[in-house]
Amino acid sequence: MSKYRRNERIGALVKILCDNPNKIFTLNYFTNMFNAAKSTVSEDIVIIKKIMENLNLGRVETIPGASGGVRYTTFINVDDTREILLDICKVMKDQNRIIPGSFLYMSDIIYNPKYVRKMGEIFATKFAGQNIDCVVTVETKGIPLALMTANVLNIPLVIIRSNNRVTEGSTVSINYVSGSTGKIQTMYVSKRAIKNGSNVLIIDDFMRAGGTARGIVELMKEFDAKVKGIGVMISTKEPEKKLVDDYLSLIILDSVDVERGIEIYPNEKVFK
Amino acid sequence: MSKYRRNERIGALVKILCDNPNKIFTLNYFTNMFNAAKSTVSEDIVIIKKIMENLNLGRVETIPGASGGVRYTTFINVDDTREILLDICKVMKDQNRIIPGSFLYMSDIIYNPKYVRKMGEIFATKFAGQNIDCVVTVETKGIPLALMTANVLNIPLVIIRSNNRVTEGSTVSINYVSGSTGKIQTMYVSKRAIKNGSNVLIIDDFMRAGGTARGIVELMKEFDAKVKGIGVMISTKEPEKKLVDDYLSLIILDSVDVERGIEIYPNEKVFK
Repeated sequence: MSKYRRNERIGALVKILCDNPNKIFTLNYFTNMFNAAKSTVSEDIVIIKKIMENLNLGRVETIPGASGGVRYTTFINVDDTREILLDICKVMKDQNRIIPGSFLYMSDIIYNPKYVRKMGEIFATKFAGQNIDCVVTVETKGIPLALMTANVLNIPLVIIRSNNRVTEGSTVSINYVSGSTGKIQTMYVSKRAIKNGSNVLIIDDFMRAGGTARGIVELMKEFDAKVKGIGVMISTKEPEKKLVDDYLSLIILDSVDVERGIEIYPNEKVFK
Repeated sequence: MSKYRRNERIGALVKILCDNPNKIFTLNYFTNMFNAAKSTVSEDIVIIKKIMENLNLGRVETIPGASGGVRYTTFINVDDTREILLDICKVMKDQNRIIPGSFLYMSDIIYNPKYVRKMGEIFATKFAGQNIDCVVTVETKGIPLALMTANVLNIPLVIIRSNNRVTEGSTVSINYVSGSTGKIQTMYVSKRAIKNGSNVLIIDDFMRAGGTARGIVELMKEFDAKVKGIGVMISTKEPEKKLVDDYLSLIILDSVDVERGIEIYPNEKVFK
């Protein structure tokens, strides 16, 4: 069995920990892998902890006790968060994005791993430590963002469907009123998808009146699930009063106007 | 400006490179970050290269020339690939997954970051070096897998819609015949989503007759796009002849029977 040098172990440790965010590895796992003493691996981890902190690359914690070990969690600081959101707003401000009906074309942003990866990390940072069991979204446009959030939290994603599909098996459905159009719509989720009493985090790309989010909250009641948070990428400034109270939007869309342009900016609440 | 020790630099380098797969970083970027000489950072990278190779953690390459630098790319070897796919097949074999119509419930797998992350890495490994510009999928169930593939390839994802949506702006549509049901369906994609002449990789969760994949291939012709590959998570054994010729499925679903159980296994073609 080969021996590894400290800097080799550190390179490998960082890779493995960061590839598996929020997963606890026992020290034994690494002592076996590197054929090294526990004290040696412990020292490696102390070094990694420090460098991650100093360079704002995330957090490495050691968890004591029998089921303990070491775990990496995503952490984005306020400055980096602001930079990411300002960058997205800048891209969004392009007048060419305006499509008939004062909508903004944004599929290229909300489907781009480069952006949703970072926004997923922001949500994971904001909703950390809440013992969330799964991320819930409704198809289609919020899926990439929700998946990236679930990915860094290392928990399953649940996708609510807007049509009843045979592949979902037995489903639970709910009727809800879209806050913007006033139309009654139905959403469906597989009965197997959510364990009763789960802690859930709702993630979506866009909130106007909040009717969809409200619908999801209602649907979660059917599973006795506790909504620990609602995160949306963009919420519109108007109507100010949404159909859900407690939500965090990363970006606020103030107005879309062919003449005056697009007013969009990061939500200051994110930086608190 | 603080100085960093070798093992600190290595920890940080691995984190930054692996967080940004397929992205080329100049050496200058790191010499500035670490306040270190170019030769020092070069040596760091040689060490990282070796450890990644030895422990099968991916590939680090240095690219020479003016636009050169260093880049991390995902690489999963045959043994790890087999282990991942066998693990998924084992989970899929659970008789409780059978739902009326001999369908298999698999949303919990295809939406779970734990699984799609790994399958995305397998696809990225198999389709590496093909200069792919974007990953294309059709809503809904294939999105997580397609996004994870796009994520490790560091390229955009394009989602084809099964309904025409106002938020997509001007769209291109195509009618196609579902190979399994024989029904005519329509798919839509935003005109802005794909640059003319792009190299695309099609990713989906499931293939029975291949009608959907065939539809996507036809739709890509409208953009003069070149289909560099088709990857699906699961294809059914029957019909053996699909409506597309060249595709790679990770897993083959042989039969679903309440009495005899579920026959499902990794596709040996993946390991070649």
